[in-house]
Amino acid sequence: MIARSPLAPDAFPDLPAIDGVDIAAAETGLKYKGRPDLLLMKFADGTQVAGTFTRSLCPSAPVDWCRQHLSGGEARGVVVNAGNANAFTGHDGADACEAVVAAAADVLSCRPSRIFAASTGVIGEVLPADKLTPHIQSMAADMAGDRWADAATAIMTTDTFPKGATRRVDIAGTTVRINGIVKGSGMIAPDMATMLAFICTDAALPAAVLQACLSDAVEKSFNRSTVDSDTSTSDTVLMFATGAAGTADIADAADPALDAFRVALDDLCVDLAKQVVRDGEGASKFITINVTGAESDGAAKRIALSIANSPLVKTAIAGEDANWGRVVMAVGKAGEKAERDKLSISMGGIVIAKDGAAVADYDEAPVAQHMKGQEIEIDVDLAIGDGAATVWTCDLTHGYISINADYRS
Amino acid sequence: MIARSPLAPDAFPDLPAIDGVDIAAAETGLKYKGRPDLLLMKFADGTQVAGTFTRSLCPSAPVDWCRQHLSGGEARGVVVNAGNANAFTGHDGADACEAVVAAAADVLSCRPSRIFAASTGVIGEVLPADKLTPHIQSMAADMAGDRWADAATAIMTTDTFPKGATRRVDIAGTTVRINGIVKGSGMIAPDMATMLAFICTDAALPAAVLQACLSDAVEKSFNRSTVDSDTSTSDTVLMFATGAAGTADIADAADPALDAFRVALDDLCVDLAKQVVRDGEGASKFITINVTGAESDGAAKRIALSIANSPLVKTAIAGEDANWGRVVMAVGKAGEKAERDKLSISMGGIVIAKDGAAVADYDEAPVAQHMKGQEIEIDVDLAIGDGAATVWTCDLTHGYISINADYRS
Repeated sequence: MIARSPLAPDAFPDLPAIDGVDIAAAETGLKYKGRPDLLLMKFADGTQVAGTFTRSLCPSAPVDWCRQHLSGGEARGVVVNAGNANAFTGHDGADACEAVVAAAADVLSCRPSRIFAASTGVIGEVLPADKLTPHIQSMAADMAGDRWADAATAIMTTDTFPKGATRRVDIAGTTVRINGIVKGSGMIAPDMATMLAFICTDAALPAAVLQACLSDAVEKSFNRSTVDSDTSTSDTVLMFATGAAGTADIADAADPALDAFRVALDDLCVDLAKQVVRDGEGASKFITINVTGAESDGAAKRIALSIANSPLVKTAIAGEDANWGRVVMAVGKAGEKAERDKLSISMGGIVIAKDGAAVADYDEAPVAQHMKGQEIEIDVDLAIGDGAATVWTCDLTHGYISINADYRS
Repeated sequence: MIARSPLAPDAFPDLPAIDGVDIAAAETGLKYKGRPDLLLMKFADGTQVAGTFTRSLCPSAPVDWCRQHLSGGEARGVVVNAGNANAFTGHDGADACEAVVAAAADVLSCRPSRIFAASTGVIGEVLPADKLTPHIQSMAADMAGDRWADAATAIMTTDTFPKGATRRVDIAGTTVRINGIVKGSGMIAPDMATMLAFICTDAALPAAVLQACLSDAVEKSFNRSTVDSDTSTSDTVLMFATGAAGTADIADAADPALDAFRVALDDLCVDLAKQVVRDGEGASKFITINVTGAESDGAAKRIALSIANSPLVKTAIAGEDANWGRVVMAVGKAGEKAERDKLSISMGGIVIAKDGAAVADYDEAPVAQHMKGQEIEIDVDLAIGDGAATVWTCDLTHGYISINADYRS
């Protein structure tokens, strides 16, 4: 049993029901005991769906399934299991995914193509569908709208706390809600920490508009967080819009009536992404890396990720060492335009290095104090352009080694 | 004090003198006590030089110096210090590098442009040249050809053993020797483990030919080894050809008379690169990753490096876990063409996964036995082309965290 992350929030937030969404969770005992490990969500007729998936070229069977059916644009349900990723399992894995989907389609009275699926856990073992399907009928018979904490718990693997967020916002005068749940506990750590997120809203938005909003939000949030640089085979973010709030028709994601909604969705996704990092395997520090003055926003993001993924930067922070030389190294290896003699680096708001060299007598005391905290801030200014990006990560500790050297055995 | 790597060879190999090369090492006490930390090598008149350097955009002052003067093609000496990398040190760092070079040029009676330099150690502190220059005069007064072990020791930082290799080979009927020394103790781990290698031969080869041979050998060796994916600001490989063996004039690196020499040089560089990995920080296992059947050799190399740099693969091996699912993940994230359903993975020569799924009842016992050893072999076949590459790395252990969370403080 892994202890609750020291970076965890005090409690799971209070997620209200979303009109048009019903939830059930069950304990199948597939891998985890004494906690739910299977989630079923049922959506109102006409619910629109959008999704983003891992860029891995070795995706899991449920990722294949979701990709195949996303273009239909409608969803009646989603079924998610924890403990087995059903990835790299060949035709048997695809059959198992279809069996689970068929069981859900049966009890929710819809075509299988309206059921979305996700699996998270060990790679390379075929999902034992027959251990899940018997639960699906009883789950469908007892669903409710207020079980978001159960839902967030049912999708956990090595996560040490359930993760969720909620926002309330207006679209053209009508109030809508957005709820999201996510699991880590690396954004990027397969076998046990595949990232899955499920977001629901009662806004009425056609699938194409929903997809545009979601893709943009994912790029600004999940795609800017990293635990260990290892992209999983199963990363999945699915968003469902039930339309139950009865908002006005919106045919274009760029419609100004959606501005506040999109800001709220971006904000919710950032909230969820940060919770994943706060539960990063072995994490003891939450690290924010701000890169400014890069050639472009894309260059800034790649430089920020180069810093965030550097094992030497991450171990230095674990050791509470303001080792800015390693930040220089990570900037230098990023492959993006940089001029050593213009580079500035700050930690905790104190400028440590400027114009390509250490600041002769910067005040070390507040920097040392900052490094002892749980929230670390690194600012890098390249001073060659207007590109900027922020990335979130955690430190690399003995806990990460312990978790990952022992996980499967 | 860090214990000697369990993967270290029994002893430093017996490196013979190379005609035209004299060596001195000194203790300056700059950072390390009770061991040499400054190296001076003197070369015969007309010695030709070739070099390859870090691709970091934040290179150290001595890397700048070497790049600037490499085109001259001739070298009279090289001076190397351990304990301070003189990287990200601005104009003061460049001045310090020039002061050390000037002192060496003075005692070796040559223009400064014939002196090459390298520094390794902490980033961001200006090299205190005045602590090194007083030693250079006395070193020049007491040089000898048989001090290769001293030379290999003088360039160490967190290395736990000195590293060297030697080869003897014929060029058009004349026997020549090649000696090389290298330091790690990550190929890729700055602050303390910048990789430096120095190779000498008594072959007579013009600088352009030497450069072609060296660049090719570096690509096949050092560039295929990794400890932690962090590219240093100071990586430097310099090769010197004294011409003392009096070999025939060769004007083209593709001359068949050089074939055996190039094979020997490739082999020596692979030997040195493997020694660096064997001294990787915290390493307990040496890992060879062979990728075959890729779209191209370049794709195979990038896939092999994706596996070699994956913290999840490296921690699994530290835990003696044949977790091939993590290998699948690393193939999937490499960004190179791969077809999941054609992929095969072997460990210790036993096929574990084939055609996109686990082999139903592969023999786990010999695989488990293999994982307990110190030499781990992973073979990945993509079955889509003829591209192949081999990469060497080590596991990721608690030792790495301990070394890097505590280094500077």
